[in-house]
Amino acid sequence: MHNLLDSITDVLLMGPGPSAVHPEVYKALARPTLGHLDSEFIAIMDQTKEHMRWLMNTKNALTFPISGTGSAGMETCFVNLVEPGDSVLVLVNGVFGKRMVEVASRLGAQVDTVDAMWGMPIDIVDVRAALKKKAYKIVALVHAETSTGVLNPVQEIAAEVGRTEALFLLDSVTGLGGIPVKVDEWRVDAFYSGTQKCLSVPPGLAPASLSARAHEVLNARKKPVPNWYLDVSLLTSYWEGAKRAYHHTAPINMIYGLYQGLLLLRAEGQEAAFARHREAHLQFVEGIEEMGLSMLVPKESRLPMLNAVVVPEGVDEAAVRARLRQEYHIEIGAGLGPLAGAIWRVGLMGYTARPENVTRVLNALRGCLS
Amino acid sequence: MHNLLDSITDVLLMGPGPSAVHPEVYKALARPTLGHLDSEFIAIMDQTKEHMRWLMNTKNALTFPISGTGSAGMETCFVNLVEPGDSVLVLVNGVFGKRMVEVASRLGAQVDTVDAMWGMPIDIVDVRAALKKKAYKIVALVHAETSTGVLNPVQEIAAEVGRTEALFLLDSVTGLGGIPVKVDEWRVDAFYSGTQKCLSVPPGLAPASLSARAHEVLNARKKPVPNWYLDVSLLTSYWEGAKRAYHHTAPINMIYGLYQGLLLLRAEGQEAAFARHREAHLQFVEGIEEMGLSMLVPKESRLPMLNAVVVPEGVDEAAVRARLRQEYHIEIGAGLGPLAGAIWRVGLMGYTARPENVTRVLNALRGCLS
Repeated sequence: MHNLLDSITDVLLMGPGPSAVHPEVYKALARPTLGHLDSEFIAIMDQTKEHMRWLMNTKNALTFPISGTGSAGMETCFVNLVEPGDSVLVLVNGVFGKRMVEVASRLGAQVDTVDAMWGMPIDIVDVRAALKKKAYKIVALVHAETSTGVLNPVQEIAAEVGRTEALFLLDSVTGLGGIPVKVDEWRVDAFYSGTQKCLSVPPGLAPASLSARAHEVLNARKKPVPNWYLDVSLLTSYWEGAKRAYHHTAPINMIYGLYQGLLLLRAEGQEAAFARHREAHLQFVEGIEEMGLSMLVPKESRLPMLNAVVVPEGVDEAAVRARLRQEYHIEIGAGLGPLAGAIWRVGLMGYTARPENVTRVLNALRGCLS
Repeated sequence: MHNLLDSITDVLLMGPGPSAVHPEVYKALARPTLGHLDSEFIAIMDQTKEHMRWLMNTKNALTFPISGTGSAGMETCFVNLVEPGDSVLVLVNGVFGKRMVEVASRLGAQVDTVDAMWGMPIDIVDVRAALKKKAYKIVALVHAETSTGVLNPVQEIAAEVGRTEALFLLDSVTGLGGIPVKVDEWRVDAFYSGTQKCLSVPPGLAPASLSARAHEVLNARKKPVPNWYLDVSLLTSYWEGAKRAYHHTAPINMIYGLYQGLLLLRAEGQEAAFARHREAHLQFVEGIEEMGLSMLVPKESRLPMLNAVVVPEGVDEAAVRARLRQEYHIEIGAGLGPLAGAIWRVGLMGYTARPENVTRVLNALRGCLS
């Protein structure tokens, strides 16, 4: 029978994720599978948690990868902390803020939003006003909006949330590994990310972390978490402590991949990794502007790893993407929602964020637009 | 920094899963990651669904892998079909039946059970009586109880459920690929399995299938599924149809692994794969009985792929497992719940189910017990 895997094209992944996987991570995925309670595997789990804490800048005990993709991380944070009727404030300026509203609403939360135009950051003035008007159990923010390329002012928002009793829930699926994430300094209570962005690992896991305060809220629930698979109070019996108890069978080889991706970042250093993302971004923007194109997001709010380029008038944006993929073997992303047709999303994440890749995509774009 | 992956022991996995991974599957995991909306990847998704339908013996349109481990498959089936107050009957004779009770209860179902002793199959007489007494929305069964090694009489139970209006929910995490699974013939409405048992793929995905009837029940829900990540009505927009819409980023490389595992089974043929599991089992039981040991489960209800061996009196079962692991590099499993300390669980699943592995574990056991 014909094996489709034998003819996979080696595509340079420059979309909104997945990004390019590091060769050492591919090797890690193919290492011999161990049992999920094997002491050698537990050592790998423990080191993985330690490396996650390092990258998230946290001492949180409850720091481990959720056995699902980034969206499972979102689901985990909300389902463990929300009980029906709880007030939740979501700051929305893109697809992932909207998704938070949907996830929390389905769990019975009373959701309010602070909205900003897609492509613009959340306005701290609006956050301040919303927090004055009402007390919330949870305030939720997307650090790096993958749908628009906006970096939200997390530090300022964290300070405002810190003046209230609310739990602070932060999505940094696209940020972690490419820009600073300071879980403890920002007093984040529930945090999640994904493997397929700046960690150079395929999609499949959601590195997550809960503060001691979030753990208390979880322990004080009136009813058990309505999701057995993602119940953190059960997951901890597998991920923490001297004696590990079986909950579900962990995705062993994906955890090898995450471990390896984190090890590579640790060897590189956080500052060096952030500089690599920043330099790739600046090189890209320079090339884009030289071509006479422009960026969607104002300079001071641009994410380095997700670059929203305005599609010039008269250009068939889908045809350009198709040609990049077919002729140049480069994937870039389309706009979503109100930005569909209006932008290209060029990812410079993880192993993708290297000067030769930026040069390659700029040359290819030039070829398509000339 | 020291890389723990460099010193992983190549352990022969003969526990309750994960089982040995096929070398071609390891290769598949390390193939270049494609975008989750790339047409090459969509072709792999489509073939994966087709191979799943073949192995499950179903024509169900809604047949695709859930982005989580086997337990996420369980969560998916219940969370999509259960609404608060629904009556659910779970047939319980081991850990996974008990888990179903827990999952359904957390979702607000009114759960009744039919129980059988751990190590014995569900008694069809009890099922008949329960179904006469009350109408259920869902009847749930574990086909192959991994915690005890019992094969439940699925065909007889299916016939009984078929005389009612209830939906039939079947867990065959451990069965699929090792014993016949006939989703359509048994009129199963919600089915899930796992990759880490008889498919020779690492843990991480839950191959699942929903019948047209289950789909109707899902569409007629009063409230949206209280789990965005596992909402099948959303997942179908990504897994089905001419134009695929982004839901969450699929675990690309794990899907490569599943595709490859299914391709290997397709090349071998279902009957040949079942015969391979059966022969490994018979060879194992013969060796065990020659050693003077005995099997927990009556002959007619034994699973070929999960062999529960009674620990002989006076033997320290944990010490034997530890010695097998350290000295012989073989993992076998312990008993759970009421069977803790009383049995060893020896998995003969997927790529593990080969005569040379049976010989190896029998020799090792002999060494430990002599």
